[in-house]
Amino acid sequence: MRILGIDPGTARCGWGVIDVSKHDGRVTYVKHGCIESDKMINTQDRLVKVHRNICDLIQEYKPDQVSLELLFMFNNQKTVMKISEARGVILLACGQNGLKDQTYEYTPGQVKLAVTGSGRADKKLVVEEVKKAFPEAAVSSGKKDGFDDAADALAVAMARFHKYIEEEIK
Amino acid sequence: MRILGIDPGTARCGWGVIDVSKHDGRVTYVKHGCIESDKMINTQDRLVKVHRNICDLIQEYKPDQVSLELLFMFNNQKTVMKISEARGVILLACGQNGLKDQTYEYTPGQVKLAVTGSGRADKKLVVEEVKKAFPEAAVSSGKKDGFDDAADALAVAMARFHKYIEEEIK
Repeated sequence: MRILGIDPGTARCGWGVIDVSKHDGRVTYVKHGCIESDKMINTQDRLVKVHRNICDLIQEYKPDQVSLELLFMFNNQKTVMKISEARGVILLACGQNGLKDQTYEYTPGQVKLAVTGSGRADKKLVVEEVKKAFPEAAVSSGKKDGFDDAADALAVAMARFHKYIEEEIK
Repeated sequence: MRILGIDPGTARCGWGVIDVSKHDGRVTYVKHGCIESDKMINTQDRLVKVHRNICDLIQEYKPDQVSLELLFMFNNQKTVMKISEARGVILLACGQNGLKDQTYEYTPGQVKLAVTGSGRADKKLVVEEVKKAFPEAAVSSGKKDGFDDAADALAVAMARFHKYIEEEIK
């Protein structure tokens, strides 16, 4: 069972792929990355890029499920609007590629809880825990901050993994 | 010069097409409608429908420009998120169909000002003014409220028309 985790954004959109063994519930790292858009290009170009890249990722890695981070109360309305526009094209890409009934969404609190055991953990701890879970992912990063961008995406994939295991046990 | 006006939404997404004569600046009504999605279907199906319909409209009516209503400070964060998701797939459809440098956005205040002469006019007055401008559009509506849904879209197309004329005069 393969999960594609996505941390939505237009300037930087992190993604991470993990495999879950249905046999023993073990989780293994597959790949991670970040869709980056130059700040100078316009919103529509960015949205086209995010949409095309997500479609490509789905076709390349063929995930069975997608796990997407839900927005939570931001103070900045503009940020909410920009991230929601990116979420729109990501949800569209999943819907167009046969994953509409396999797209799950988790709040930042749920993601933190799944990864660190606390819904109020800070971002640094989330990154550390993801690094511990997938040391090969952290090592494979070329850029110093390359992993941090995708860590949230791997974390949201792990949130889905935890929920999946819970559901399987039931 | 043809303008496609869009009033973004996932449940109801109004649209209206108008033609502007470059010769004498006269504006004529072409068509209007509303992309409706059943409230029972999920967000992804709705986004897929809005995206496909906007792509179809662009291919059928071949607008030179698109005019889109910008969101303005809402109280309800959920509404902002839902409408922004729809805006994301609409901006994507325009970007994918060669209109990325021909997409204009206007705030509700700018739209009201263009149509009624006041940035603080109520929705009813906007609908009345659009009816006066395009009586054939109001008549052609089958459903009683069919026109009201698209009136905002025709109004945002008119906002672009006014701006275009201003720019031409300069």
